[in-house]
Amino acid sequence: MKLTILGCYSATPQIHTNPTAQILEIKNHTFLIDCGEGTQVELRRNKIKFGRIKHIFISHLHGDHCFGLAGLISTFRLLTREADLHIYAPKGLKEVITLQMKLAESWTNYRLIFHELSSNSSELIYEDDKVEVYTIPLDHRIYTNGFLFKEKLGERKLDMNAVLNADIDVAYYRKLKQGADVPNNDGDLVANDEVTLDPKPPKSYAFCSDTAYNESIVPIIKDVTVLYHESTFTEKHKELAAPTKHSTAREAATIAKKAHAGHLILGHYSTRYDSLDVFKEEAATIFKEVSLAKDGLTFTFD
Amino acid sequence: MKLTILGCYSATPQIHTNPTAQILEIKNHTFLIDCGEGTQVELRRNKIKFGRIKHIFISHLHGDHCFGLAGLISTFRLLTREADLHIYAPKGLKEVITLQMKLAESWTNYRLIFHELSSNSSELIYEDDKVEVYTIPLDHRIYTNGFLFKEKLGERKLDMNAVLNADIDVAYYRKLKQGADVPNNDGDLVANDEVTLDPKPPKSYAFCSDTAYNESIVPIIKDVTVLYHESTFTEKHKELAAPTKHSTAREAATIAKKAHAGHLILGHYSTRYDSLDVFKEEAATIFKEVSLAKDGLTFTFD
Repeated sequence: MKLTILGCYSATPQIHTNPTAQILEIKNHTFLIDCGEGTQVELRRNKIKFGRIKHIFISHLHGDHCFGLAGLISTFRLLTREADLHIYAPKGLKEVITLQMKLAESWTNYRLIFHELSSNSSELIYEDDKVEVYTIPLDHRIYTNGFLFKEKLGERKLDMNAVLNADIDVAYYRKLKQGADVPNNDGDLVANDEVTLDPKPPKSYAFCSDTAYNESIVPIIKDVTVLYHESTFTEKHKELAAPTKHSTAREAATIAKKAHAGHLILGHYSTRYDSLDVFKEEAATIFKEVSLAKDGLTFTFD
Repeated sequence: MKLTILGCYSATPQIHTNPTAQILEIKNHTFLIDCGEGTQVELRRNKIKFGRIKHIFISHLHGDHCFGLAGLISTFRLLTREADLHIYAPKGLKEVITLQMKLAESWTNYRLIFHELSSNSSELIYEDDKVEVYTIPLDHRIYTNGFLFKEKLGERKLDMNAVLNADIDVAYYRKLKQGADVPNNDGDLVANDEVTLDPKPPKSYAFCSDTAYNESIVPIIKDVTVLYHESTFTEKHKELAAPTKHSTAREAATIAKKAHAGHLILGHYSTRYDSLDVFKEEAATIFKEVSLAKDGLTFTFD
């Protein structure tokens, strides 16, 4: 599981700071999460292959999270993309993009499939045999979802020495991987756990931006491997966090602690701060395993 | 008259090439012409003060000419702009921007005034006591205008030695500047041209992008001081220019020559070319006074 931060600042793109966008590589997927203005250039800078992106998740319709999408869709068209593109976004974005394509008389040659979100409860929005994606309803000024990406538990691994010693026919290997007890060549039943090993524990990633401090997300993201939680402000500017429905670094850390997250990544910083160190210091008083997102930084979690 | 190229490439923003946007400073105005994705960052990089921009001219609704506008409008709002903003653009853009603001629940605190263009004839779209702006109907795949910015002829200048020798009362100076003959203190009529000098010749700038080769614009831009004309391709790729309704460098130079332009600036290059020198060489065989636009380059015309 690998996370590449394309942009982690709030509000408005500047020369050295990009609005929100990130790439999550998980189980052979390349998921794009949010798409602020300039995201397509950051994808190039970080050498992410455009053709690998098949699913885009948009948290909400503030410009710093979605104004790069129309350009990316248009660039995919110019690059003669053929593969379907799925976009999971609040209701309304489909109308904007469709209108932009209509006015430009530039329809995509590939299929553009919008999955419009409007529920206020966590829901499963994507699933295949390896991964599930759920929404995380957030508390922001407009309708906003975070996203929880969960690896599914893999198959059990064969302990080959034990399997050979038990004299089990190769025809039963598939059933063994699925957890079943199987007979050996003498007709005796062999207990599964005597000849197989646990699969690697599945990893998970929760993206929570933008949101006020909101304990109701804790049960949804419980025990998540990695939590990205916005911290637009530090406690010094706490009075700005409430009316704008953003969080402080301390609040982000409190959510991470309550959710028993494995690791916390902070981001969505206001551009008013000269140094980001204060965010990490503030969060670390509550939750030790904390990192700072930075544009262009990659996190690998194995 | 000063022109700053923020972006001069076609199709799609890349790491070192920006889509179309430029700033024309003329008679104390700071006009923004086109606004591709990333324009707000290029404005910062080129140290253009956001508050100076009061009029934005959008040629057409392909993304590489307008996808940066929603973000710029949003950033103006975040910077608590109060001054009116006028946008001259093809019909349709107002609907897109309005929908984006509605979905974001982020209306501007300043007045946003759209001047929707739909005429296929050149028309006067802005005028004050110093400057006029006309549309230049272009021939592209969708409805597109170039823009002609014309300084008005200034007042005549007083030749102070002659004025004093002629013994003209100061009360008549204003009339003299306006070109009138006036009486001197002896009651004799003094011919205006005996005591005044011609004003500086007014300058003009024509922005023509995107367009196929189109001689019908020649009368509109006749004798223009500076012509920016797109040259997406060189003659080597002429077979691409016709179906996409773009021009070659040679065609741009032919228009400049026919219009008796003072100077030609080429731009809107396809990103397929490693070097731009071939554009200049090709154009120079037809029209000598030619320059290449480059992102971040400023041209001053005095």
